[in-house]
Amino acid sequence: MLAHRLIERKRDGGRIEPGEWRALALAYAKGHIPDYQMAALLMACFLRGLDRTETAALTEAMLQSGERLELAHIGKPRLDKHSTGGVGDKVSLVLAPLVASLGVAVPMMSGRSLGHTGGTLDKLEAIPGFRTDLSLAEASAQIETLGCAMIGQSPEIAPADKKMYALRDATATVESIPLIAASIMSKKIAEDLTGLVLDMKRGSGAFIPELDRVLELADVMIKLGDDHGCPCVALVTAMDRPLGRSAGNAVEVAEAVEVLAGGGPADVVELTVALAREMLAAAGRDDVDPADALADGRAMDAWRRMISAQGGDPDASLPRPAERHVVPAPATGTLTRLDAYAVGVAAWRLGAGRARKEDPVASAAGVTWTANVGEQVRAGEPLLELHTDEPGRIPRALEALEGAIGVDTADRPLPLILERIDAP
Amino acid sequence: MLAHRLIERKRDGGRIEPGEWRALALAYAKGHIPDYQMAALLMACFLRGLDRTETAALTEAMLQSGERLELAHIGKPRLDKHSTGGVGDKVSLVLAPLVASLGVAVPMMSGRSLGHTGGTLDKLEAIPGFRTDLSLAEASAQIETLGCAMIGQSPEIAPADKKMYALRDATATVESIPLIAASIMSKKIAEDLTGLVLDMKRGSGAFIPELDRVLELADVMIKLGDDHGCPCVALVTAMDRPLGRSAGNAVEVAEAVEVLAGGGPADVVELTVALAREMLAAAGRDDVDPADALADGRAMDAWRRMISAQGGDPDASLPRPAERHVVPAPATGTLTRLDAYAVGVAAWRLGAGRARKEDPVASAAGVTWTANVGEQVRAGEPLLELHTDEPGRIPRALEALEGAIGVDTADRPLPLILERIDAP
Repeated sequence: MLAHRLIERKRDGGRIEPGEWRALALAYAKGHIPDYQMAALLMACFLRGLDRTETAALTEAMLQSGERLELAHIGKPRLDKHSTGGVGDKVSLVLAPLVASLGVAVPMMSGRSLGHTGGTLDKLEAIPGFRTDLSLAEASAQIETLGCAMIGQSPEIAPADKKMYALRDATATVESIPLIAASIMSKKIAEDLTGLVLDMKRGSGAFIPELDRVLELADVMIKLGDDHGCPCVALVTAMDRPLGRSAGNAVEVAEAVEVLAGGGPADVVELTVALAREMLAAAGRDDVDPADALADGRAMDAWRRMISAQGGDPDASLPRPAERHVVPAPATGTLTRLDAYAVGVAAWRLGAGRARKEDPVASAAGVTWTANVGEQVRAGEPLLELHTDEPGRIPRALEALEGAIGVDTADRPLPLILERIDAP
Repeated sequence: MLAHRLIERKRDGGRIEPGEWRALALAYAKGHIPDYQMAALLMACFLRGLDRTETAALTEAMLQSGERLELAHIGKPRLDKHSTGGVGDKVSLVLAPLVASLGVAVPMMSGRSLGHTGGTLDKLEAIPGFRTDLSLAEASAQIETLGCAMIGQSPEIAPADKKMYALRDATATVESIPLIAASIMSKKIAEDLTGLVLDMKRGSGAFIPELDRVLELADVMIKLGDDHGCPCVALVTAMDRPLGRSAGNAVEVAEAVEVLAGGGPADVVELTVALAREMLAAAGRDDVDPADALADGRAMDAWRRMISAQGGDPDASLPRPAERHVVPAPATGTLTRLDAYAVGVAAWRLGAGRARKEDPVASAAGVTWTANVGEQVRAGEPLLELHTDEPGRIPRALEALEGAIGVDTADRPLPLILERIDAP
């Protein structure tokens, strides 16, 4: 009867109170509310919206449905970064060891690939032996000794969110700003952070392409962080083109290792350093420069320690694809367009992503490119390389890329970092 | 994937095409679409609405999900009446044999009690031996020989509607005008009618109390009938007070038999005759008067034949309650208020209705009253009598009646028949 009454109220534009959200989330996590009632409620929330109090209460309710990390005893600031998801975005892989190498704890809980966007866990699992399924106790111990851990959402963290997210995915109720914000923040707050940096992607390859909705989401998340004692800062960054020179799993790990070695594509380095600076500033460590830690090997050392601690071999060869297919540049001139969404779909179709959440991903699958937007290309020379274990996947990947490449047109790329938004 | 795409489109205010409604209803009836997806879609329909084409397509899709009666061969006009549900509304029991006795076929498919409103099937089942679960073939044969049958929605009729209605009941998506209209009309059209008369209740005891929404529902149903070759006429009638002098099961059968015998409360007779005239007019039989058939015993004969044909004994005693409790009139004067909703809830709490759809009802339970609104009452003399098999139910029934009775105040009752609405 509780669920029926709350569906009715939300349907009519009313508000669900904090205690009611708590009861709902707990009952749903325990299976006492059937999926069909929650689906009706979520659609009503999607169409009627949630105000700030409700969004905070839903976040808190999902958080309370499970466990959380307890890290206060380690005596360090604890920062994380959340990205709204993009194509070729391997920044997390570099950022966690980089910031940890400078004395800030980074308890990083990541996700898997979703649609055309890659997932940090899938990328990390391209490293032979690497485990992302640490228990909360293991993760906590590793963060205390090494300063960072990169793990998946353990079953103890926000189980109501996990179940609700799967249901939203099946019922076309994902793209609601308060529901997205509550889902992300319930997991981030469970990491027991002292601060959080948000990388809000916009452009074709972003989860939410439109700038106004990206800004609205950033605003809701910053307020939620504020309401839960976790101050947030957001950078709004470009995802009209993919990041770096690769999208996939092993190919992105290789590129992250290049950056950790002091090299790598300029845009990946720029964004990583900018996000690291925000994390360090939030931790009160304006005195250190993350660019130095990339240049002098401290970040690489932290990476190798973390990989080893989680069962991986930092020196192992990464999986290589059975088949490669080269796409040449269509003309000579400035590359003005390399569409992030198209590249993401191509990588997905090559096997780097998954169609259903229970599918495995192919570690060796993905796309690499020799130039990004703003750089010079020459007609006929290799521009893209498609990697896959199943050659039959190549034609559909090529289809996704039709119209995705522009040379010498009047298009103007988005600035890499558009804006910095601080709590009011 | 079909369901996800359609939920998304309806969520964003788009339109679902007739072929898509057909595929949806069939797949849902067969269990190929899970309840949680249908629940999200129904909430989106509730909040976004359905236009006339969509409502017609949903009606058609639910109709096509099952079988229908085939009655054209009997060579008579085929009329039915649908009431939106009220308290003490036993009109169907009289109307079917009455109109059949005048040469018009009445294939009447009815429902069970729902919340505070009674159900024709529950009332009929108070008659010892009476069966409402005739097969479509049995019903069809009886309509051919006797002119009428009163049955439940057989499992073959609109199974998609049956399943969808149960889901709407659990997900607070019942009170949507297009969904209500499509649900009712899919079943009525399955009766293979040449016309339909609608009794649209308004007032506290009605399913939809507000006049503007009642008129909107009438409009949608009349248009649906028009779109499906089943012309409809609606009467908008009073349900601020209950109808007649009884609400319950056996008590209402007894009152219907009084009317069939040429007596009974004036309001029941007036409404029955008005609805019968509409059915006869729609059948092209303006030449006969239903009041005559009540007076001269033809309607009673048709009733007795129908009861016997469906296994009942028209001469059997009806169930009597174990306990009766009298409520006296609170003052002397004109009864100005006898609230239909309160009386419905009281009858329900005495056992005449059901809390869950799988519950049985108590045939002997109900409420009777000695005067209706507009009549004179005397302080201390019996006004209401509560009937139940479980005396423990009486206090809660009395609670429901608090404030339900008004004597000699300035309240003015609604006119019994407010308006007649014909197709445009």
